[in-house]
Amino acid sequence: MKEAINSDWLNSINWGDDGLIPAIAQDKDSGRVLCLAWMNREALALTVAEKRAVYWSRSRQKLWRKGEESGHIQRLDELRLDCDKDAILLYVTQQGGIACHTGRVSCFYEKLDGDNWQVVDPIIKDPKDIYKK
Amino acid sequence: MKEAINSDWLNSINWGDDGLIPAIAQDKDSGRVLCLAWMNREALALTVAEKRAVYWSRSRQKLWRKGEESGHIQRLDELRLDCDKDAILLYVTQQGGIACHTGRVSCFYEKLDGDNWQVVDPIIKDPKDIYKK
Repeated sequence: MKEAINSDWLNSINWGDDGLIPAIAQDKDSGRVLCLAWMNREALALTVAEKRAVYWSRSRQKLWRKGEESGHIQRLDELRLDCDKDAILLYVTQQGGIACHTGRVSCFYEKLDGDNWQVVDPIIKDPKDIYKK
Repeated sequence: MKEAINSDWLNSINWGDDGLIPAIAQDKDSGRVLCLAWMNREALALTVAEKRAVYWSRSRQKLWRKGEESGHIQRLDELRLDCDKDAILLYVTQQGGIACHTGRVSCFYEKLDGDNWQVVDPIIKDPKDIYKK
């Protein structure tokens, strides 16, 4: 793993001062933008090695294998880098068709309607049923 | 403008310590993710007021009306907020069909192919012709 972390393709990324970059996950079939999360060097190396989205949780300060509790894994189909080399785009296949911890397809489920954010996407599955232990 | 900046819908956003949030622009017709840029409170208020993407340029430390030089304006069709309220998604109509300063449709034009980033999207228009004074 240490060798992978020093790969040229990882070195060419402009990591932020905090060692992170924003990563966008997009459903490769529907085109829906599913979520924006963060990756450090290890998370991105693991994402490619394991062909699934692995993020860095800023709130928990640890690696977060997306779907580790819910089963809602994001299988990696393609990885893109932007022109400034400081943002990543993942084309993914979303297991279960649910990316959001609220049980919705996408984390972007609130739409600005006039002066108010309105929830416009339905809950596909109750979070209680997703995260039952 | 001052009034607009204190709107409830702006106050409900979890702005970063630097006063910024990442904003994703997605072409509403093709579904292509065009770019990831940053917004502060004023940029987002202006985006909604002017119905076009206005970002905060971190490198130039000033407001950046996308397309102000190139003409490649991003018309705002819809604005979305994510579940953590710390990322924005814009559905836009991309004037000229070019979002990237390199003359490409999207800023995400490099694809990871094995251990290398490969340019996979063509240049639609030479930047010399886009930014001629």
